[in-house]
Amino acid sequence: MIRVTVWNEYVHELNEPDVAAVHPNGIHATLAAFLSKEEDFAVRTCTLHDPEHGLTEEVLEDTDVLVWWGHMSHGRVADAVVDRVYKHIQGGMGLIALHSAHHSKIFKKLMGTSCNLRWRHGDRCRVWVVKPNHPIAAGVEETFSLPQEEMYGEPFDVPNPDDVVFMSWFSGGEVFRSGCTWTRGNGKIFHFQPGHELYPSYFEKNVQQVIKNAIRWAKPITKGVWIPVHEVAPLENIEQAINDEE
Amino acid sequence: MIRVTVWNEYVHELNEPDVAAVHPNGIHATLAAFLSKEEDFAVRTCTLHDPEHGLTEEVLEDTDVLVWWGHMSHGRVADAVVDRVYKHIQGGMGLIALHSAHHSKIFKKLMGTSCNLRWRHGDRCRVWVVKPNHPIAAGVEETFSLPQEEMYGEPFDVPNPDDVVFMSWFSGGEVFRSGCTWTRGNGKIFHFQPGHELYPSYFEKNVQQVIKNAIRWAKPITKGVWIPVHEVAPLENIEQAINDEE
Amino acid sequence: MIRVTVWNEYVHELNEPDVAAVHPNGIHATLAAFLSKEEDFAVRTCTLHDPEHGLTEEVLEDTDVLVWWGHMSHGRVADAVVDRVYKHIQGGMGLIALHSAHHSKIFKKLMGTSCNLRWRHGDRCRVWVVKPNHPIAAGVEETFSLPQEEMYGEPFDVPNPDDVVFMSWFSGGEVFRSGCTWTRGNGKIFHFQPGHELYPSYFEKNVQQVIKNAIRWAKPITKGVWIPVHEVAPLENIEQAINDEE
Amino acid sequence: MIRVTVWNEYVHELNEPDVAAVHPNGIHATLAAFLSKEEDFAVRTCTLHDPEHGLTEEVLEDTDVLVWWGHMSHGRVADAVVDRVYKHIQGGMGLIALHSAHHSKIFKKLMGTSCNLRWRHGDRCRVWVVKPNHPIAAGVEETFSLPQEEMYGEPFDVPNPDDVVFMSWFSGGEVFRSGCTWTRGNGKIFHFQPGHELYPSYFEKNVQQVIKNAIRWAKPITKGVWIPVHEVAPLENIEQAINDEE
Repeated sequence: MIRVTVWNEYVHELNEPDVAAVHPNGIHATLAAFLSKEEDFAVRTCTLHDPEHGLTEEVLEDTDVLVWWGHMSHGRVADAVVDRVYKHIQGGMGLIALHSAHHSKIFKKLMGTSCNLRWRHGDRCRVWVVKPNHPIAAGVEETFSLPQEEMYGEPFDVPNPDDVVFMSWFSGGEVFRSGCTWTRGNGKIFHFQPGHELYPSYFEKNVQQVIKNAIRWAKPITKGVWIPVHEVAPLENIEQAINDEE
Repeated sequence: MIRVTVWNEYVHELNEPDVAAVHPNGIHATLAAFLSKEEDFAVRTCTLHDPEHGLTEEVLEDTDVLVWWGHMSHGRVADAVVDRVYKHIQGGMGLIALHSAHHSKIFKKLMGTSCNLRWRHGDRCRVWVVKPNHPIAAGVEETFSLPQEEMYGEPFDVPNPDDVVFMSWFSGGEVFRSGCTWTRGNGKIFHFQPGHELYPSYFEKNVQQVIKNAIRWAKPITKGVWIPVHEVAPLENIEQAINDEE
Repeated sequence: MIRVTVWNEYVHELNEPDVAAVHPNGIHATLAAFLSKEEDFAVRTCTLHDPEHGLTEEVLEDTDVLVWWGHMSHGRVADAVVDRVYKHIQGGMGLIALHSAHHSKIFKKLMGTSCNLRWRHGDRCRVWVVKPNHPIAAGVEETFSLPQEEMYGEPFDVPNPDDVVFMSWFSGGEVFRSGCTWTRGNGKIFHFQPGHELYPSYFEKNVQQVIKNAIRWAKPITKGVWIPVHEVAPLENIEQAINDEE
Repeated sequence: MIRVTVWNEYVHELNEPDVAAVHPNGIHATLAAFLSKEEDFAVRTCTLHDPEHGLTEEVLEDTDVLVWWGHMSHGRVADAVVDRVYKHIQGGMGLIALHSAHHSKIFKKLMGTSCNLRWRHGDRCRVWVVKPNHPIAAGVEETFSLPQEEMYGEPFDVPNPDDVVFMSWFSGGEVFRSGCTWTRGNGKIFHFQPGHELYPSYFEKNVQQVIKNAIRWAKPITKGVWIPVHEVAPLENIEQAINDEE
């Protein structure tokens, strides 16, 4: 079983009827609904409003892959929680950063850049598979259209990705590396652009397939960093050799 | 001085009045015209029709960066010439592969892939700078439009680039990694998508700036591969140490 | 089941008693012996001496991952077979290139470089895990020693790998990126340095673990390249928009 | 002129006679001494003890490349100064992180990882050029020996570098990616392993050549991030087209 924790700030849905109409129980519930149908996933959800935002040491210790959606309330996420999530990612927990999570504290802390991008509401979006044999592209159509999405455009200020799996086209003239992977410590990270709160992208079958694939790809191989921080003894004894040369 | 050799198959221009109208003396002459204005460039041109396609050992030995345009006559380039160019790139000569040079023998031999892509004539193209601080992007506008270009679309079947410097948007719905760099041996390689024979892209100031930047970026630091192919002596004497351990 | 084909040139073992003492039935048999114990592997072997070197269209069509060992007889591998293997790798077949396979025709054709390196017989080798959370490093000790190996040293003339999973230390003073991954077309490629014919490296448990992991990592997600080579129709209809601007 | 600022924590040299014997005026003075001989460099130095550690907004605005040496006092560097340096690197200022600067606040903030590594005092170190045609390797011997250095060993917990230019061998059995590049925002970053405070590595000609090359490589192409953070207008007018389809 892959232990999946879906985190959502859950603010738009409570305050904006238009968003609530799309995600009546919150974006986290929309995500959990299709993820829970997978036999190898054990899914829990939590939000900004839970104590410690639901991301206690116990929950993170029990999480293989964390899915993150946040937008207008990045600043309300406690730094102590961000540091805890960061530590777990270094130790091997996977992170799936969805849509505006590109500007979350945790994603920016992992990237070491501003993660800025161009943006605009209400464009048509077309997603392309760029690396068809990547595990995250398995079973995804070579291209699919999202009739309404928020435009995210280049330059996307992130470090060179390990792999660019998807790229997006927008009707207003922009392009975007819309599905990218990185490694930080032992943790695997994937950012995926679709998912503005007003549009039903998380109900689209290809989008769902990408997120399921990404979770399976990001599950840890090993958990726990074993790089020693203390001085280590030599493994090869070549003192005599050094003397020989002198 | 950077010694630049511009190679062009020079077939469309001789056979098609529409192309000749754009490039009366050939695409190589169009390119050489703006490159020759640079004080640090020494430019020569040659074509498919020259003996050994103009790419003799003497010419390549005297070349820092080779610019390549080819399209319908890739198959007419002699394998012996391709092998010679390949050897010089390994030794440090730079290669700027323009437009349909993505399917040239030399580019495919360097990539180790099919270099296939989607294509269609006559779209509008918009180029975006993705990596603004890369030397090849210096002085280039953050985005510029080419009213008519051949669409090149993803997936572009190439190995992961070292850097993606530009990406393109097409009016028909496609996206493309339109300016990418790779290293092969000591040689630096850059592919740039604009430049269909029917359209005046090589007269556009940003396109010209990109090609000039790319030439300066691709000039060799060292020429000549010094990796030994014979057995080498040990640099550290630790025989005694090995005995100590036994 | 992952369909594994182990290919070996099988020349040293027939001509040199010292090598036959290590690999009485050939290196391919040594490899197949431990690979066949894996329940998810279906293993076959073939050699240079088989018709078409055993790598017919039927065999390759029935292969998910090809393991390759060759050394002194690279030049005897028929170009037609190399081209066939190349085509299958582009289509998604994985390739595990062992030891001196770095100089095989197929590996060089995929890399687009000389694949030269420094070399010397009979050093002590110590392998280090560099990327512990990579699937190929799963269950491998953080470092392990091979008392006798052929030294392979940098510079290793290959394109930037996607990932450097292992690096090696040699008693004579050299270092090497000893376990690297690349993608070519839909095919995943892994080169692993240990395995000189005179030394029992393929009996070492960590070396075996690496090769088993690499096979599982390299199995195709999709087989068959679906990039169209013919002209494609536009997906978005923006003719009207173009007219509007004029 | 490239405006170079050399920053040193300057603590070991004041407290430890053995270190003062190697660097009588501090490591920053040792570095500035050979850097100042370059006609294209304008060099200034500052240390932890200066107001704002010498890294005021004015100084950073006037800096193209910042060279950083720190070790025991990383924790004493004010977070406000780290944030200011970070902002300037995002905007294009280069950073050369020397030796134990791998654990500095600024380097870890840029990497998004622990930057942990194995370490031990007093090994022999041999540096190898891995990417001979990289600008940072220009004029550097293919290998050179440092008779005494602190061992830094893999796994080095950093994100995949853009380029691995150098690798090091240590007499105790370890290996290390000792000269790596990354890009963050518009800033170019290079880490170089040699330079323990007790050993005269910064007087070695190859080490000096690497640092000079790195400074020239890291100078900004453009300064100032121009990625808009506000909503942007569409560049292509395809409203009509969207309507056509409906």
